[in-house]
Amino acid sequence: MAHKPKHKNTHNKMNILYIVAMQAEAQPFIDHYGVKEVVDFFSPLPCKLYQTTITNANGNSSQLSIVLNGQQHGSDLVGCEAASVATLAAIQRLHPDIIVNSGTCGGFQAKGAEIAKVYIGNACMFHDRRVPGDDIWGTQALGNYPVWKGAQEMSESLNLPLGKVTTGSSLDLQPCDLEIIQENGGELKDMEGAAVAFVASLLNTPVVFVKSVTDLCDSGAETFEEFSRNLSKASQALKETNIRVIDYLSNL
Amino acid sequence: MAHKPKHKNTHNKMNILYIVAMQAEAQPFIDHYGVKEVVDFFSPLPCKLYQTTITNANGNSSQLSIVLNGQQHGSDLVGCEAASVATLAAIQRLHPDIIVNSGTCGGFQAKGAEIAKVYIGNACMFHDRRVPGDDIWGTQALGNYPVWKGAQEMSESLNLPLGKVTTGSSLDLQPCDLEIIQENGGELKDMEGAAVAFVASLLNTPVVFVKSVTDLCDSGAETFEEFSRNLSKASQALKETNIRVIDYLSNL
Repeated sequence: MAHKPKHKNTHNKMNILYIVAMQAEAQPFIDHYGVKEVVDFFSPLPCKLYQTTITNANGNSSQLSIVLNGQQHGSDLVGCEAASVATLAAIQRLHPDIIVNSGTCGGFQAKGAEIAKVYIGNACMFHDRRVPGDDIWGTQALGNYPVWKGAQEMSESLNLPLGKVTTGSSLDLQPCDLEIIQENGGELKDMEGAAVAFVASLLNTPVVFVKSVTDLCDSGAETFEEFSRNLSKASQALKETNIRVIDYLSNL
Repeated sequence: MAHKPKHKNTHNKMNILYIVAMQAEAQPFIDHYGVKEVVDFFSPLPCKLYQTTITNANGNSSQLSIVLNGQQHGSDLVGCEAASVATLAAIQRLHPDIIVNSGTCGGFQAKGAEIAKVYIGNACMFHDRRVPGDDIWGTQALGNYPVWKGAQEMSESLNLPLGKVTTGSSLDLQPCDLEIIQENGGELKDMEGAAVAFVASLLNTPVVFVKSVTDLCDSGAETFEEFSRNLSKASQALKETNIRVIDYLSNL
């Protein structure tokens, strides 16, 4: 395989790390694999670890770690600061061969998005970090962090559409956000992806995205209502795709 | 002292951690104390550590650690993701008694701000994380993380004004940001403070802010030009205040 991530462990078993913000997004595939929580692994940080070994039909084994941001003040932590913390702590402790940041996102009907359609993210950017001035500040603000070079090959193999993740700290989109998204080709609007990729870039860890559409940014519907209504359906679709993605990665 | 942070080390020496985004903001007081960099302390993370022991006029010693975000793509890392990474890595490695997040900020003339006026921040919030829905989501998005209980006592002792830090990922302010700032009493607009306080809250570490005004959000001037013009002056004022703050904390 051209883009097999370099194994960091010695026993040639792929070490796959999922970073997922909300419990509801991860629960269907936590249940599917029947993995139990490794309690207090990240304590005192609130991040949660679920871990298991998977052996696929070809007899290839992978270590699968699913890390959630955990809770504060009674709600699942979302957004870029919590994603930065979870990603740094998880890379430090788990030394993954590859990170999959998986979750729900907003899509654009104009670009073919539909509710519960699942994409492979092969690029990423921030749309709400406006820092003018010299080009270097604009470049840093936008991000455009590297994504795993095998993303396109995987998407072709699994017959999944590709898209560029665009990350911001809000559930809504303001006109200034939309302008930056349109100028820079953003397609899958989420609240964590570029933060995960930023931290992964600092530690030279390959990252790829698996994102399922909960809401259509250009539908005119109220985002929170649309998100809430479709969260369960989108998370089920995410599970089905993630099972295929994990099988694919285990065969690399 | 009522609000002395609990010492985590055994030799009763205050362990003070400064988190500063830009080299230009920290350099005047790095130069003042003549501290040298502890090279590659955080490697492979780009964060930089400067460390020294300070003994003040009363014979009280403190360990002073100054952590900068470091660079990526040729510019100093700014913003909430870089601040989250630096704060987590620094707490994990340095076990501070107290964190001082120090740097420049935007102020509001209508609230008495002037260029190079230095404030103690005794509260903090985010102004660009818009998540509607249940109250718990809005509460998480706004942040309002705890700040060191001794902040007010210190401000009175040093005759420095108090203010509430309000953090966002952009240098500018959009109308939607301003609305949230006004509704929630934000006064000192920066790009890192609440992210530092969020990570500190996860690890139960006291945090306080020392912020110097580079630009006036309600002056009508172009922010980047005003910021660039006043960065050196504001950083010099920051140095003078930080010397007094470190002396104060060493006497606790």
